[in-house]
Amino acid sequence: MNAEVVAVGTELLLGQIVDTNSAWIGEQLALGGIDCLRHVRVGDNLNRIVSVLRESLERADAVVVCGGLGPTQDDLTRDAIAVVMGAELRRDPEAEATLRAMFAARGREMPANNLRQADVPVGASRIAQQPGTAPGLVAPVGDKVIYAVPGVPYEMREMVAGTVIPDLRRRAGEMSVIVSRTLRTWGQSESGLAEQIAERIDHLDGTGNPTLAFLASGVEGIKVRITARAADEEAGAALLEAEEALLREILGEIVFGTDDTTMEAAVQQLLREAGLRLAIAESVSGGMAAARFCAVPDASDVFCGGVVAYDPAVKFSLLEVPEGPVVSEAAAKAMADGVRRLFGAEVGLATTGVAGPDALEGVEPGVVHIGIALDDSVEAVTVRLPGDRERIRGYATISAFDALRHRLLARRRA
Amino acid sequence: MNAEVVAVGTELLLGQIVDTNSAWIGEQLALGGIDCLRHVRVGDNLNRIVSVLRESLERADAVVVCGGLGPTQDDLTRDAIAVVMGAELRRDPEAEATLRAMFAARGREMPANNLRQADVPVGASRIAQQPGTAPGLVAPVGDKVIYAVPGVPYEMREMVAGTVIPDLRRRAGEMSVIVSRTLRTWGQSESGLAEQIAERIDHLDGTGNPTLAFLASGVEGIKVRITARAADEEAGAALLEAEEALLREILGEIVFGTDDTTMEAAVQQLLREAGLRLAIAESVSGGMAAARFCAVPDASDVFCGGVVAYDPAVKFSLLEVPEGPVVSEAAAKAMADGVRRLFGAEVGLATTGVAGPDALEGVEPGVVHIGIALDDSVEAVTVRLPGDRERIRGYATISAFDALRHRLLARRRA
Repeated sequence: MNAEVVAVGTELLLGQIVDTNSAWIGEQLALGGIDCLRHVRVGDNLNRIVSVLRESLERADAVVVCGGLGPTQDDLTRDAIAVVMGAELRRDPEAEATLRAMFAARGREMPANNLRQADVPVGASRIAQQPGTAPGLVAPVGDKVIYAVPGVPYEMREMVAGTVIPDLRRRAGEMSVIVSRTLRTWGQSESGLAEQIAERIDHLDGTGNPTLAFLASGVEGIKVRITARAADEEAGAALLEAEEALLREILGEIVFGTDDTTMEAAVQQLLREAGLRLAIAESVSGGMAAARFCAVPDASDVFCGGVVAYDPAVKFSLLEVPEGPVVSEAAAKAMADGVRRLFGAEVGLATTGVAGPDALEGVEPGVVHIGIALDDSVEAVTVRLPGDRERIRGYATISAFDALRHRLLARRRA
Repeated sequence: MNAEVVAVGTELLLGQIVDTNSAWIGEQLALGGIDCLRHVRVGDNLNRIVSVLRESLERADAVVVCGGLGPTQDDLTRDAIAVVMGAELRRDPEAEATLRAMFAARGREMPANNLRQADVPVGASRIAQQPGTAPGLVAPVGDKVIYAVPGVPYEMREMVAGTVIPDLRRRAGEMSVIVSRTLRTWGQSESGLAEQIAERIDHLDGTGNPTLAFLASGVEGIKVRITARAADEEAGAALLEAEEALLREILGEIVFGTDDTTMEAAVQQLLREAGLRLAIAESVSGGMAAARFCAVPDASDVFCGGVVAYDPAVKFSLLEVPEGPVVSEAAAKAMADGVRRLFGAEVGLATTGVAGPDALEGVEPGVVHIGIALDDSVEAVTVRLPGDRERIRGYATISAFDALRHRLLARRRA
């Protein structure tokens, strides 16, 4: 079973919008075990959409077409599918009623155009929509099939995950379910990770289930994705559990979380467990650490606040850093201790370094000192980070969080 | 003259990487007056790349193919182009020397594989590369042409802007140049902007040169792009100047800059001109304002630093905010004044509000108070912002900068 993805919209061709939908659909197809050999983007033009759909159907068993289901005259995906099916569009009474009810619920008059969204090619069926106003379509063409989903990402995702992938897998005669879990790691290169778990990779290459994949994610670290095939969800979950346990035993503390857990959420969880509150003093990261920390909705019970000590004078006066070079381990330690005192927090975290483009105090861009004040100890670590100003600032932030994470883990063990 | 864009890479089909390159190339083609009717993504498979290139050449005058020029066995774009041309690959001595010199300069041994990057189909010519290691290709096929550029964005951009677009325009017999400039605006809706400059739009619809386009850019505001066609760069620049002057006269101070000027860079320029230094106190924006301010490389002469006063207690103690509701205009004013005093700065800027998801002190998410302390005045403005936690934080940051910008402009006028 294989499929192609078609994204419809002139704004995609003009580069006004980046096509993230196709990437997401491609990932879902791969996770579902369905080969995808081509993605195509085409503008809002009936004949061209029809050509693209026909060509894709010649090569593949199925086409997922995304976008062009809105209410305007530019939205031509329904019409194109009708042409490819050789069928007429017919207004679906149920879809029409849903549309009218949605507008009525919001107390708004429905523009007549919107009724186009209730048009369904004869022989196709609707994918019911939850939040938006455009229903999707499942349109059989001979023994092949076209799925049409909206271009609005959250509507698209719901229909692809909830209807398209399961339907494709049913057509493929696939009765199993596919489940996956991602281990989030920080502090090891992709080749280093592969070396550490080489035995597991070899073993799984033999069994073929579950499988492992590495996803490099820049400043967010490297993700190790476990994908398992099983008779049902429960059996799948058991396979994931077992593999996660094995990998965690090998990888140890470089795993900071699973799936959508961010580094800052992992640190906050450790602080919460230990009943500690954090204050942050930032120079090189310039507020990024505080901003990421505050992005977690329930940060307030473990986060007092922070100081962005951009001007060296602020380090000396507000944070009581002794006069001297401010890009140094000594300064990082004094900043961590100073901000902890200033905010009355139990933990102080500090960054100082050089983001570039120019050197500072004779120190090259990329050198970053991280200070941690906790209990009776004030420590510093130094890292050398790659990239331009923006990347150095990002890496400095995540490196500081990771250093604190390791310190909190060591404290818990002690 | 029309062109198609082909992006090569299995990782694109699997959704491991989002294809931003095609969007960028699509925009450049549009700006260059070259129609682009289709984008295609295909995996690292010789036969499939060959099919895609042949099909695109049947429909279009030119194909820009991006990616697959690296040194590994998976990099097959060169080979595919040779097949399409019916030509052999031959090692280019000059390209080989460049590669060897690049590795020698870094003191690294060159893997033998890398020499593949010096292979050029007979009849094609190289696009010389600056920073990376993969040269691009210009490959004529009958009276049509394939351009191959690397997948690394900055290498790709240089080759597309420097070689591909000018060459395409030459082939189109186009002797004119196309130049563009973007006015950055904040504080007006797209329809509001269109209404304000309706007369200019009508006028330019008549003349057709220059043209105007609106680009909504979320938290970064709405961009008004002026595109002009002229006999040479100088004449083009004159058209842009004249149109910019007319638009600025109508739009006034909602224009905060041009092209890549960010809101924070605009504010920093005003501070610099006035000889003022800023300190920031952040609650709802949680460090985002400081982080954006520090992202500008030469911020240090106008930025002292900031306090992230996440815990209300910090507002009371460190910033000397009077005890009471912290989501209020009074608190915003006290924070701005307090942080200015604390850092010894001439200007204080503060944000306090509710990012959500829950209400705070009975105030709904989206309500944000901005405090500004400057000279003898301490003022506050209140804004109501849309969206989820992340968007509210982003909009709070940019709204605070914009409020300060207007305050500094008023001071300059006074």
